[in-house]
Amino acid sequence: MVSGECRLEEVIQEGSRVLLLTERRKRYLVKVKPGVRFHTSEGYVDLSNLVGKRYGTRLTSNTGSVWFALKPTILDIVMKMPRPTQIVYPKDLGTVIFFGNIRPGSRVVEAGTGSGVLTAVMASYVMPYGVVYSYDVLEEHLENARKQLDALGLLPYVRLKQGDVTVAIEERDLDTVVLDIPTPWLAVPNAYKALSNGGVLVSLSPTIDQVMETVEALNSSGFVDITTIELLMRTLRVKRGMTRPDHMMRAHTTYITIAKKAYQDGQT
Amino acid sequence: MVSGECRLEEVIQEGSRVLLLTERRKRYLVKVKPGVRFHTSEGYVDLSNLVGKRYGTRLTSNTGSVWFALKPTILDIVMKMPRPTQIVYPKDLGTVIFFGNIRPGSRVVEAGTGSGVLTAVMASYVMPYGVVYSYDVLEEHLENARKQLDALGLLPYVRLKQGDVTVAIEERDLDTVVLDIPTPWLAVPNAYKALSNGGVLVSLSPTIDQVMETVEALNSSGFVDITTIELLMRTLRVKRGMTRPDHMMRAHTTYITIAKKAYQDGQT
Amino acid sequence: MVSGECRLEEVIQEGSRVLLLTERRKRYLVKVKPGVRFHTSEGYVDLSNLVGKRYGTRLTSNTGSVWFALKPTILDIVMKMPRPTQIVYPKDLGTVIFFGNIRPGSRVVEAGTGSGVLTAVMASYVMPYGVVYSYDVLEEHLENARKQLDALGLLPYVRLKQGDVTVAIEERDLDTVVLDIPTPWLAVPNAYKALSNGGVLVSLSPTIDQVMETVEALNSSGFVDITTIELLMRTLRVKRGMTRPDHMMRAHTTYITIAKKAYQDGQT
Amino acid sequence: MVSGECRLEEVIQEGSRVLLLTERRKRYLVKVKPGVRFHTSEGYVDLSNLVGKRYGTRLTSNTGSVWFALKPTILDIVMKMPRPTQIVYPKDLGTVIFFGNIRPGSRVVEAGTGSGVLTAVMASYVMPYGVVYSYDVLEEHLENARKQLDALGLLPYVRLKQGDVTVAIEERDLDTVVLDIPTPWLAVPNAYKALSNGGVLVSLSPTIDQVMETVEALNSSGFVDITTIELLMRTLRVKRGMTRPDHMMRAHTTYITIAKKAYQDGQT
Repeated sequence: MVSGECRLEEVIQEGSRVLLLTERRKRYLVKVKPGVRFHTSEGYVDLSNLVGKRYGTRLTSNTGSVWFALKPTILDIVMKMPRPTQIVYPKDLGTVIFFGNIRPGSRVVEAGTGSGVLTAVMASYVMPYGVVYSYDVLEEHLENARKQLDALGLLPYVRLKQGDVTVAIEERDLDTVVLDIPTPWLAVPNAYKALSNGGVLVSLSPTIDQVMETVEALNSSGFVDITTIELLMRTLRVKRGMTRPDHMMRAHTTYITIAKKAYQDGQT
Repeated sequence: MVSGECRLEEVIQEGSRVLLLTERRKRYLVKVKPGVRFHTSEGYVDLSNLVGKRYGTRLTSNTGSVWFALKPTILDIVMKMPRPTQIVYPKDLGTVIFFGNIRPGSRVVEAGTGSGVLTAVMASYVMPYGVVYSYDVLEEHLENARKQLDALGLLPYVRLKQGDVTVAIEERDLDTVVLDIPTPWLAVPNAYKALSNGGVLVSLSPTIDQVMETVEALNSSGFVDITTIELLMRTLRVKRGMTRPDHMMRAHTTYITIAKKAYQDGQT
Repeated sequence: MVSGECRLEEVIQEGSRVLLLTERRKRYLVKVKPGVRFHTSEGYVDLSNLVGKRYGTRLTSNTGSVWFALKPTILDIVMKMPRPTQIVYPKDLGTVIFFGNIRPGSRVVEAGTGSGVLTAVMASYVMPYGVVYSYDVLEEHLENARKQLDALGLLPYVRLKQGDVTVAIEERDLDTVVLDIPTPWLAVPNAYKALSNGGVLVSLSPTIDQVMETVEALNSSGFVDITTIELLMRTLRVKRGMTRPDHMMRAHTTYITIAKKAYQDGQT
Repeated sequence: MVSGECRLEEVIQEGSRVLLLTERRKRYLVKVKPGVRFHTSEGYVDLSNLVGKRYGTRLTSNTGSVWFALKPTILDIVMKMPRPTQIVYPKDLGTVIFFGNIRPGSRVVEAGTGSGVLTAVMASYVMPYGVVYSYDVLEEHLENARKQLDALGLLPYVRLKQGDVTVAIEERDLDTVVLDIPTPWLAVPNAYKALSNGGVLVSLSPTIDQVMETVEALNSSGFVDITTIELLMRTLRVKRGMTRPDHMMRAHTTYITIAKKAYQDGQT
């Protein structure tokens, strides 16, 4: 910056969340509290010392390991959320957002809430005027998600609802319905009723058997433009003379099925 | 819908953009104008007839082919934009948005504007309060993008600028810089200056040689948490008894390198 | 070669098969006949001129295009065989050979013969003492394969048999059974009887539905160590400053299921 | 079998190698010796009991775990060889054999011998009349390989040679040269001299930097028809209602470059 001044949000404050990146590329998401030492296998740092520092600042642990105190992105944050259930992986999250047409102002129904990772990501994209209605059958999932979303300041953009979308979806005129439940095909008719005529359904399922059942339900329930995809993400080690893809990768997380609601004549 | 009433945007009007999906799954993005017949190899329809119909409505062409008039998503729209240059592909667009931490309110610099596909997508995610500063060295790219963005109502969220980011980036305190230029490494120092201390750089390059140069520039210019990925997207044919991945796929589009700005002591 | 002499098979003779590789990387498999001109979009060459030349020799077409007259590998040859049916692709052929434990001396049953591509490859690996029994229900497939195998000198290692392996496999004590038919699960019990106790079954199917049925049949018919794989092959353009994976690839050809026969107590 | 008789090699004998497949799909390659108990986390079996049993026979460990005593394939055997060096993976082994045109009777040079896995596989495909000349600079690699190949009965088809192929390759008129060394480009001119005019070079390298150097050397040393590939192998869990690709996969092992020798005029 030319002026030497910092925007408030560029300076770490008490209570700020900071991503600590260690010399060995370990990643820790911490909340800055005075008087707290954060211990790792690469030594410790005093979190108090971070207050007033700029994001991106360099630290040295007591053992001489060089770390950075980075401003966490939404990706950094959700990857460190507790996971009572299987989460949606980063490679799939951006695709759900984009292929699901989830944008600022969107009204979205999600089921189930699960660990709240996808809920948090969607909330951060529909804000400030949109809303995510997130259903889960288990109260404990909703409670955990509420706590997490609150800590992230995303709760205003989410309505957590105990309920089973295979029984009913209360909302109408939705832009998108995202199904991440074991039997998405049972929720397809309810999703149809809940979507606006321009609406998009996104369904996530790990097994091909689930995909088959879901696609059949979509075909017979008034959905068109049905596509099923899967994404493979490869990371690379980039270093002059030693550049190659990393040795291991996640070979499979979920299939993603996307469909659009068609208007049916009998519909009122 | 229970009430029988439609929200205004659910009804196709004169001037509306409609995605025509034909029986053979061809996709056409059309603007509804009275008195215009839209001809395809599967017959024609009168676009006038669409006015007042709900999105998602079913049509029959003069040859009896069954079509749907769908509300286009942002993905549908950008895939039909003219392409004076190579575009960023759908599988990569969502990842640039999400891994690039581009969200409602973000201030982003992009270079080059190219066909404006990524510009349009980013604009649709930073709105209503954010802005995309999009640089290109060629006036004709900017002119084409201006026309496209205007037609999409996204121009208010974009500043198109003729200029070369390897020479200078004028903005400061940016959330994200996205480089999609032949020599991203030459723009890395300018990107460093332009980013806020919490900022993210995303660089897109088709060749591994470009990636090597860029990662070296990032390492020596104060960036950390550097990751290079590539995405493979497979589509599936899902049909009971005949389910399999589609035969052909795009094997490569671009590598995506993501990095975070670290704060350097000498920086004012 | 130090001596200046050539082994007979290093010199192109009348009747030799030669792989012509053109300047634009087109590939033609030709039989050298005197007085024949071979015409392409890159000009023509007189095949007579090749007689007495070494394999690998450089030619110039009448239009100045530089070609090479290469000795074809077994891969080059089978890729140019006529294809009355879908063929097994190169990436899968080597895997069938190796995972199928098909080696010099192996006794193998194959069904169906189809275009004879896999038959030819297997024959070239079981020789000189092994044999491939290749079943097909269609006489025309067998006739075509017979002609092809004869031209390649591989017919001595193959017994072409009209028959349906879902009805019966006549051979016993086989090392490997390879199924490339629409309903492999119906042939599994016959394959069990035909295999030696150390035998391996390999089944090729394009759809996941076929794989499910086949694996169920294997599980209930005395097979163990059952594995299903698929292979993705990417080609790369390697050129300093421009290195990247090629843009398109075959995303799917076939799933390959491999299983071993377990000995059952009731078996005599 | 119809006759009730067994071929000798179908019956497990003292000294036979057997692949034990346990209930939890662990795999152990054992040599049958009288009086030896083989202990695992799933209990033990007395190997003596296997003598006289057919391959594929079912065993029960002392803890009631159900195992199978299978006849090992060449793949099973090489996967259990000791690994003093990085090995070539199964997905790549079949491709080296097939794309390298390595067949019964082939004369092949390999460097380096390394753990001997590729040596053993190639030996099992060139037999009974072919030979693999396997170079390594380290005597200990050669010693280890000699022991392994001897135990497998493959030593007659291999000549183990201490030497550096970047300095010299002594053989001439080879069908195939396989390079699996850190600097394959330095061996390319020697490989050219060693190959017959119909010969094929195969080079394995984990990094893209090595591939670039090698392809440049091939281009400037009289090789044509140069292709670089990489293979991805996905395994699937196939089970009605639960079918999906396995979660993790090896994302990268090696690039494979294949080239053919062109005849050069100055060559004697």
